[in-house]
Amino acid sequence: MMNFKKYKRVPVLDYPNREWPDKEIKKAPAWCSVDLRDGNQALIDPMTVDEKIEMFQLLLKLGFKEIEIGFPAASQIEYDFLRKLVEENMIPDDVTVQVLTQCREHLIDRTFEAIEGIKNVIVHIYNSTSVLQRDVVFHMDKEAIKQIAIDGTNMVKERMKNCEGNITLEYSPESFTGTEMEFALDICNAVQKTWDHANDNKIIFNLPATVEMTTPNVYADQIEWMNKHFEDRDNIILSVHPHNDRGTGVAATELALLAGADRVEGTLFGNGERTGNVDILTLAYNMFSQGINPGLELGDINEIREVYERCCKMKVGMRHPYAGKLVFTAFSGSHQDAINKGIHAMNKRGDGIWEVPYLPIDPSDLGRQYEPIVRINSQSGKGGVAFVMDAAYGYKLPKEMQREFADVIQKISEKQGEVSPSTIMDKFREEYLDAEEPFAFIRAKVEEPEEEGETRVTLRFRYKGEEMLAEAEGNGPINAAIQAIRGKVPSVDVHVLNYSEHALSEGSEAKAAAYIQMEDAKSGRITFGVGVSSNITRASIRGMFSALNRLSR
Amino acid sequence: MMNFKKYKRVPVLDYPNREWPDKEIKKAPAWCSVDLRDGNQALIDPMTVDEKIEMFQLLLKLGFKEIEIGFPAASQIEYDFLRKLVEENMIPDDVTVQVLTQCREHLIDRTFEAIEGIKNVIVHIYNSTSVLQRDVVFHMDKEAIKQIAIDGTNMVKERMKNCEGNITLEYSPESFTGTEMEFALDICNAVQKTWDHANDNKIIFNLPATVEMTTPNVYADQIEWMNKHFEDRDNIILSVHPHNDRGTGVAATELALLAGADRVEGTLFGNGERTGNVDILTLAYNMFSQGINPGLELGDINEIREVYERCCKMKVGMRHPYAGKLVFTAFSGSHQDAINKGIHAMNKRGDGIWEVPYLPIDPSDLGRQYEPIVRINSQSGKGGVAFVMDAAYGYKLPKEMQREFADVIQKISEKQGEVSPSTIMDKFREEYLDAEEPFAFIRAKVEEPEEEGETRVTLRFRYKGEEMLAEAEGNGPINAAIQAIRGKVPSVDVHVLNYSEHALSEGSEAKAAAYIQMEDAKSGRITFGVGVSSNITRASIRGMFSALNRLSR
Repeated sequence: MMNFKKYKRVPVLDYPNREWPDKEIKKAPAWCSVDLRDGNQALIDPMTVDEKIEMFQLLLKLGFKEIEIGFPAASQIEYDFLRKLVEENMIPDDVTVQVLTQCREHLIDRTFEAIEGIKNVIVHIYNSTSVLQRDVVFHMDKEAIKQIAIDGTNMVKERMKNCEGNITLEYSPESFTGTEMEFALDICNAVQKTWDHANDNKIIFNLPATVEMTTPNVYADQIEWMNKHFEDRDNIILSVHPHNDRGTGVAATELALLAGADRVEGTLFGNGERTGNVDILTLAYNMFSQGINPGLELGDINEIREVYERCCKMKVGMRHPYAGKLVFTAFSGSHQDAINKGIHAMNKRGDGIWEVPYLPIDPSDLGRQYEPIVRINSQSGKGGVAFVMDAAYGYKLPKEMQREFADVIQKISEKQGEVSPSTIMDKFREEYLDAEEPFAFIRAKVEEPEEEGETRVTLRFRYKGEEMLAEAEGNGPINAAIQAIRGKVPSVDVHVLNYSEHALSEGSEAKAAAYIQMEDAKSGRITFGVGVSSNITRASIRGMFSALNRLSR
Repeated sequence: MMNFKKYKRVPVLDYPNREWPDKEIKKAPAWCSVDLRDGNQALIDPMTVDEKIEMFQLLLKLGFKEIEIGFPAASQIEYDFLRKLVEENMIPDDVTVQVLTQCREHLIDRTFEAIEGIKNVIVHIYNSTSVLQRDVVFHMDKEAIKQIAIDGTNMVKERMKNCEGNITLEYSPESFTGTEMEFALDICNAVQKTWDHANDNKIIFNLPATVEMTTPNVYADQIEWMNKHFEDRDNIILSVHPHNDRGTGVAATELALLAGADRVEGTLFGNGERTGNVDILTLAYNMFSQGINPGLELGDINEIREVYERCCKMKVGMRHPYAGKLVFTAFSGSHQDAINKGIHAMNKRGDGIWEVPYLPIDPSDLGRQYEPIVRINSQSGKGGVAFVMDAAYGYKLPKEMQREFADVIQKISEKQGEVSPSTIMDKFREEYLDAEEPFAFIRAKVEEPEEEGETRVTLRFRYKGEEMLAEAEGNGPINAAIQAIRGKVPSVDVHVLNYSEHALSEGSEAKAAAYIQMEDAKSGRITFGVGVSSNITRASIRGMFSALNRLSR
């Protein structure tokens, strides 16, 4: 049996006066992206400066008005990146950049050097406050921990006097969820008193769930307790910064918003240390799907995903809410039926309100499509077959080929009903990959000349069972191979209309698939052939043989 | 601006008497796996019978006592699979299999044929009850919808008389969360009255969040409301079946447990239609990490993951709670420091209680390891460099090579501090892939004889700038290439100690990496060489050149 006794239960807050369970989310919070800090820090291969700029510009395009760009005093790369943004005027006037720093003099000095010339800046100071961190990491009592925050606040206040930018102070009692509430409140109140209305901006108190510790209702209780107990709540922006260790980061954030939070720090697709920061996109789409203006422009999830995957070298999962490849597919016939009926009823009603079973959001609002196509039957179009070949086996059939192969599958589905992906693949093999009559490829030697010139192919193959050896030259290996065959089998009179090739990422051995569309000069018949090999040249020659065989039928 | 006005807000329940926010989870629920039904149904490529059996056996090994195996009356494949389990005696006596069916006579008849001879069976009937489905899909009023459930109950009750197995009735008001609570209650009460204690087993009322519709506290309110209003609660097992459309399925389940649910239906890693069913593993590990016996044996997450990924052809995400590749890595130096101090303090304390900053669970309890290794600096071991080469670039360095290359990186980190993955890759290229002195590969013709025999290599290369053409035979391409070089450069006297090769899955063009460990016969020096090519033979020859150059330094 698993040794569960080594873990202590995190105590709940004794807070029966909570009001958040009766509340509803009615408007979006202020969003702060920490993609360039928490997100970037947790990447196996962190973003380059160019990638950071691309990410920054994406965040601007999506409408983020607060963007944490890093910890410039601790990282020369982040310092240089921020200076580049400043010097190349890339920060719009209505956007505030946020910089993180510990409460240490030389770091705060350096931070103020880094923000020189920026119009709006959030200076984000933090120190760790939890019982555990005080005990095992810092060996400090509560007063000493509180003093760190007070000193940091004074340092920012002091340096702000010589800074032209519009500064907002943000303070995070890091590991807040492991801190006694009274102590967290005590520090925040002390920071606010120390700040003493140093300027007109509200202080941001950011209460992180640095590590998710228990069920999300407890975080909501903590946030509401803080919300109700601050001494000067009117001059505070209450911010949350949830992580996702227990897989409940989105829920914890939503409940914290019910509990009174004004602002959320998070990342695209929940990138961030370990299980990640809270996913701002999911939060925003959740609100959108409830008739709430999300305050971000998220109409093209494909673009967001593409930039994210490229810059962060991370993959968005197949079932990731809103963005995953499979989240708008319907596999079950009864679901497909209900969706069709729901869309029909909605169109008939004509009030423009989206209400469709199994589709809580209109995929087209995100730039996506509903895909009711995956179980292939006689009603499936060519898109379904192409989807299966790509999603299940990695073959990206050229557009012109999809109809050709879908017609083959159609004949099966008319006989037997639903056709499984493995049957589709078997048929694909039979039709394109395995045919050896009348032409069977044996092997080929391909010689590319050292200088520019014709390719020479020495081809061993079987024609109607008889082995042949042929040589020819051509303007490339496919052409040379056709010439070689023609030298032995003069009736072959074909030309290539189309060619494409791609790596097959699946499987333990890297292979390529080549698609050759060929026309028979006499009959005018046109067909595709497909070849697979770990050698790209051989794949294309095999594809040519495949097409020849299909033309010979 | 996004058109948020097309969506309606889902109304919250007016239920101020809720008690769940004051509760704590103190024990695990009864778990029911629906991997073989909901999970399987939502796969691009559904499991074969062999894969289903492997999954079933994994579920048994993990300790599941209730397993929904499918909808045998609607699917011949699922019928045959169930009969195979029965006929081959694969269902242990203490395990209950669950079968799904609609409330239709011929389907229930067929279901009872399917379960013939099984000791313990849950017959799971359902019909859709939500306002939306009644309106747009079924065009039925409440009474007609209720009658479907009553009729289904009577059919099961009737057929049970002639069945030797121990039957439990499960009823799901499908799309429960979109149903008026009073109506959902009314149907459940009617089903229970119709059942009328037909046997000693409690009825399972399963209340699905078929589609997640709003914040998870609302689901908890709904569950608690039902829990408190059933007419005969003592004879009911209250089950939940959450999905994850809003990314809050785990949270909704946890709050539903606070609200009184006894049982949870879900899947491994949250497989299932769209965004998936609730992830039972995350729920169970969440409980485990709070000192609660999860009631499942989950000590080897790697094995669970491996079977799941293979049978379902799905990938577990990098940041998936507990299972993701990155969730036990610490990228930040301050986190690594706090973790080290926490582990030290814990060991010193010696009470066996796990309490470590940033690591809410001991990775070894799951068969995993904490990896504080990703930012490479002069303190990093060889594991860190190997991790980066694999995780960021796909190169799986042989064990014996890791020390050799880590020493190279060590020298850089001693000079410049932290070394980025791209610097590591640059150095790898420089050391292994790009060296052309004194030997530079140009091209090779490799002829494998048609019959068994020696491989002939014709090799064009440069030695100290001079181009050479050499031919030789050997017992394979590497050996033949060495012989060819030796024919021209007699001082070359080496032999191969070790060879491995693998596909590089990254990148747009499929390539392979070959690692050749070579010893110089005279000096006794040993080194690795690495070659990359889209052709596996050429990759190994390039690797041989790489090793030769390193031996020549």
